[in-house]
Amino acid sequence: MTTTGQEKNRIMVPEPTLQRIPVYLQLLKRRFDNEGIYVSSSEIAELLDLKPIQVRKDLEYTNADGRPKLGYNARDLIKSIEKFLGYDNISDAFLVGCGNMGRALLGYSGFDSTGIKIRAAFDTNLNIIGTQVNGHKVFDVSKFSDLAKRLNVRIAILTVPFDKAQETADMMCEAGIKAIWNFAPVHLKVPDDVIVQNENMAVSLSVLVKKLDDSMKG
Amino acid sequence: MTTTGQEKNRIMVPEPTLQRIPVYLQLLKRRFDNEGIYVSSSEIAELLDLKPIQVRKDLEYTNADGRPKLGYNARDLIKSIEKFLGYDNISDAFLVGCGNMGRALLGYSGFDSTGIKIRAAFDTNLNIIGTQVNGHKVFDVSKFSDLAKRLNVRIAILTVPFDKAQETADMMCEAGIKAIWNFAPVHLKVPDDVIVQNENMAVSLSVLVKKLDDSMKG
Repeated sequence: MTTTGQEKNRIMVPEPTLQRIPVYLQLLKRRFDNEGIYVSSSEIAELLDLKPIQVRKDLEYTNADGRPKLGYNARDLIKSIEKFLGYDNISDAFLVGCGNMGRALLGYSGFDSTGIKIRAAFDTNLNIIGTQVNGHKVFDVSKFSDLAKRLNVRIAILTVPFDKAQETADMMCEAGIKAIWNFAPVHLKVPDDVIVQNENMAVSLSVLVKKLDDSMKG
Repeated sequence: MTTTGQEKNRIMVPEPTLQRIPVYLQLLKRRFDNEGIYVSSSEIAELLDLKPIQVRKDLEYTNADGRPKLGYNARDLIKSIEKFLGYDNISDAFLVGCGNMGRALLGYSGFDSTGIKIRAAFDTNLNIIGTQVNGHKVFDVSKFSDLAKRLNVRIAILTVPFDKAQETADMMCEAGIKAIWNFAPVHLKVPDDVIVQNENMAVSLSVLVKKLDDSMKG
């Protein structure tokens, strides 16, 4: 996962911390989401193969309030993390491109724990416009701009083929989208105030292969 | 994308460089893969919104041989990068779990430029075992170990539901897999000599939402 755009100068939370915090939330929601349960940084660290000091440092960024010997109240910790992650402010996303990757994301159950919802899906294929894909209604992409403005949606997921990616990104930016999660294996040119986060599957797999190659030589 | 495991102490190439190098390869293969074409670090930098010095530094790791004023011979550069990434040594992967995400990866065209091939897919569902999914034959997961050993496959892609993820990872490790690309939103426990790379979609989306939230406040 790589990110480009305006946020470069804004974020003071280190990127590795930013990536671990949602993992804590996932774990807490799955295993500790009960009234009155306390959880320590050591317990969290143990379950995720991290060092307790690392967990404590990360959680400090969320202003979570741990108590000596007891640890964190799990419910309060969940709320602190959700607030930190901005789930109270932003929670709706649109997806464009209902091919394989789009369908996978529309059916992905892992988003449940995040509070983020894919509100609608869009495509240009007349055979699937108007149908439901994994529980999401598919609209004609020509309706994107109007619906994004009406529902004040700022996040878009781009899962179109790479040769349609730039024009789709342009359309999204014109519709007021401020954050694009890009699955097309192409570098998008966007205005400075739009954040692009790239999920380039070929890059990820390449990095893994390189690491394996090194470890087998090493 | 986050990685855990043995490689921590081995890799001397900085992670951001490691993530950019496959992007260069993708770009080169798409736009410059012709006999006798030269490409400069400035051209590459311009197309990817990077600084030329950054591109030059990254490419030094691959031992690519640039010529003053001319730049790099594109074909030679592609070969250098492929060698650096280990594509000449390792190129086969198995995939377990033919749900939405598994299908998306089996149909993903972006891997073509990497030289990495998903050789076979596995599932436990009797309705899809023996069928083809996006051009890949689906085998019973009980055949995984035998086939992995026979074909000397070291890379596995894990796209099963999260409550089956750990047992699937255990099975993979016993079969001699040394690198797992994990799409299940769960922390896997594996032996020290196995590399796990996590693609946790919920985490990625959370990070993007957090950055958007910060930029709207900022």
